Amino acid sequence: MKIVVPAGGIGGARFLRGLKQAAPEAEITVIGNTGDDISLFGLRVCPDLDTVMYTLGGGINEEQGWGRADETFAVKEELAAYGVGPGWFGLGDRDFATHIVRTQMLAAGYPLSAVTEALCDRWRPGVRLIPMTDDQVETHVVIADPDRRAVHFQEWWVRLRAATPALSITPVGAADAKPAPGVLDAIEAADLVLLPPSNPVVSVGTILAVPGIRSALEAKTVVGISPIVGGAPVRGMADACLTAIGVQTSARAVAGHYGPELLDGWMVDTADEGTAVEGIAVQTRPLLMTDLAATAEIARAALEFAAELR
Amino acid sequence: MKIVVPAGGIGGARFLRGLKQAAPEAEITVIGNTGDDISLFGLRVCPDLDTVMYTLGGGINEEQGWGRADETFAVKEELAAYGVGPGWFGLGDRDFATHIVRTQMLAAGYPLSAVTEALCDRWRPGVRLIPMTDDQVETHVVIADPDRRAVHFQEWWVRLRAATPALSITPVGAADAKPAPGVLDAIEAADLVLLPPSNPVVSVGTILAVPGIRSALEAKTVVGISPIVGGAPVRGMADACLTAIGVQTSARAVAGHYGPELLDGWMVDTADEGTAVEGIAVQTRPLLMTDLAATAEIARAALEFAAELR
Repeated sequence: MKIVVPAGGIGGARFLRGLKQAAPEAEITVIGNTGDDISLFGLRVCPDLDTVMYTLGGGINEEQGWGRADETFAVKEELAAYGVGPGWFGLGDRDFATHIVRTQMLAAGYPLSAVTEALCDRWRPGVRLIPMTDDQVETHVVIADPDRRAVHFQEWWVRLRAATPALSITPVGAADAKPAPGVLDAIEAADLVLLPPSNPVVSVGTILAVPGIRSALEAKTVVGISPIVGGAPVRGMADACLTAIGVQTSARAVAGHYGPELLDGWMVDTADEGTAVEGIAVQTRPLLMTDLAATAEIARAALEFAAELR
Repeated sequence: MKIVVPAGGIGGARFLRGLKQAAPEAEITVIGNTGDDISLFGLRVCPDLDTVMYTLGGGINEEQGWGRADETFAVKEELAAYGVGPGWFGLGDRDFATHIVRTQMLAAGYPLSAVTEALCDRWRPGVRLIPMTDDQVETHVVIADPDRRAVHFQEWWVRLRAATPALSITPVGAADAKPAPGVLDAIEAADLVLLPPSNPVVSVGTILAVPGIRSALEAKTVVGISPIVGGAPVRGMADACLTAIGVQTSARAVAGHYGPELLDGWMVDTADEGTAVEGIAVQTRPLLMTDLAATAEIARAALEFAAELR
C-alpha cells in the first residue's frame, strides 16, 4: 500500500508515528511543509522537516514536540553573549549540527530534497520525506501592530506567540514554486492520501499552494483528520491562522475550506458529533493523540475509512 | 608607549598576557597570523586570532592553550553522526558560536579586520587585534607522502601532527595580499616591536610574507624572543617547520633566518648561553613562560632591551 501524507510539524509527525504502527508494511511518502523555513545565523533551518525527521527517527524532544532530546544550548548562549540575535528562536547545540550540514550542502549546490534525503540517511525515519518544493517559499504574516508590518511566520508564531492578530498570511514564493522531484510521482502512485491534523493554513495550506500539488491530490482518495476539536485547535494556534484567512475555528469550517474537490472523507472528534459537510463523508471518533496506541488507532480508522471511500 | 607584536597562537597569546602585565599603560597592537585560517563545515575558523582573543579576554582553555574553557562538544558529535567531517579538528560548541558570528559577518560583506574588531567588542582583550590581512592567505604544506600531496596547514599540523615531513610550506595568497587597514599605521607609530616566541615559519613568517609588513618592521627597533630553547621548540612542532625551509632548529639559526635587517635584539634562553649572531645584539635570560609572573619578567626584559637598542 502506498500512502502520501502532506505534513507540517508536531501534529503531522505524531500522526505519522501512529500511521507507521498501523501500517508497518505501507510505503509512506511525506510531503513536508517548508513555508516555516527560516535563515538564522546564516544557517538554513527547516523546522517542519526536522520535526518529522527527529520524531520518526527517535531524536525528538518528546515533551516539547520539537527540537532534539538531551539538548544543550551552549551555542545559543554564546551568540547572545556576542549580542547576535534573534534570541527568541530556540536552537540547541545538537540541532545546530543539522542546520550546519544542511547549509553546507545547500551552499554546495544540492537541492533541499537531496539534502533532506542525506539527513534522513542518518535518521532513517521509515518514511520517504520530501520537501514540498526545492524552491524558496517563506510564509510571511502581516500583523495588526500600528505599522502593519509583514513578519516572517516564525516571528509571529514564536516571538509574538500569534497573540498579535494576523491580517493576512502569505506563502511568499509559492506561486512560482515547483513541486520537488518525486512529489507528483508519489501522489500519482499513491493508493490514498491522508491529511494529518496539521495546521490547515500554514502547514497543509502552504503545501497546497505549490502549483500542481493540489490538483494531483484532488485526483486521489483523500481522508483528512480534523485538527480542530470542540471548536479549538488540539495544540498550536491554528485558530489565529484560520481567523486571518476568514475561516471559522470548527471542524466543519476547516473541511469546507479544504473543499469537496480535495477531501473525500473527514474525521471529526466525538466532541464534534453531528458535523456534516456537503460533498464530504464524515466519520466521528475520538481524535486526541494521547499516546502512540491511541494515535495508531486513529490512523487505522483513517485507513479503513479511505478503503471504504475508494 | 606604543608596541606592535606580530603574533601566532598559543606562544604569542601567552607572551602578550605577560606583556600586558609588564606594560599596563602601553598601547599594544597585535598583528595576528591568518595563514592558519580554515573553512570547516562552511564556517570560517581563525585559530590564531581566536587564541589571542580568548587568552587575553579570559575565555581560553588554560590547560590546552587553545579553544574555550568549560567547552562541550555536542555539535561536533552530531556532525560525526551525520558522517560529516573532518573529525580531527576539535571545534567545541562555544567556539562554534564565534565561527558562526564571523561567517555571518563575512557573508554580509564585512572584512575580517572589522569582524575581528566586532568579536573583540565582547572579549575586550586589552590590545588592538588586527589580522595581518583582510585577503585570504592559507598556508599549504607539501608533504613527503607517496603522492607529495599539498595539504592545508591544519591537516598537516593537527591531523598528521607534523609527523610526515614537510617538503615545502607556502602561504598561498600572501604575495597578493595587502596588509589589513591599520597594520602599517600601527607599525609606523610604534615605539618598538616585539617578536613573541611564536612559530618563526608558519606564524611570524606568514605575517612577514604579506608585502609591506616586513619592510615597515625593518624601520623599527625590533626585539625577538627565541621560540627555540636548547635546540628544541618550547612547545609545538616548530622544528618540523624550520627543517622544511632549511633552517636549523637553534636559537642562532632562527635569528639568522629573521636577519639583522629585521632584528635589532634577540633574546635567548640560558640554555643557549654564548649564542652570537652577526649584526644582532643578543641577550641571555631564562625564557620559559612557566607562569604569568615569569612571562611578565621576560616581557619586561624585552622592553628594557629594546629601550637600550633604540
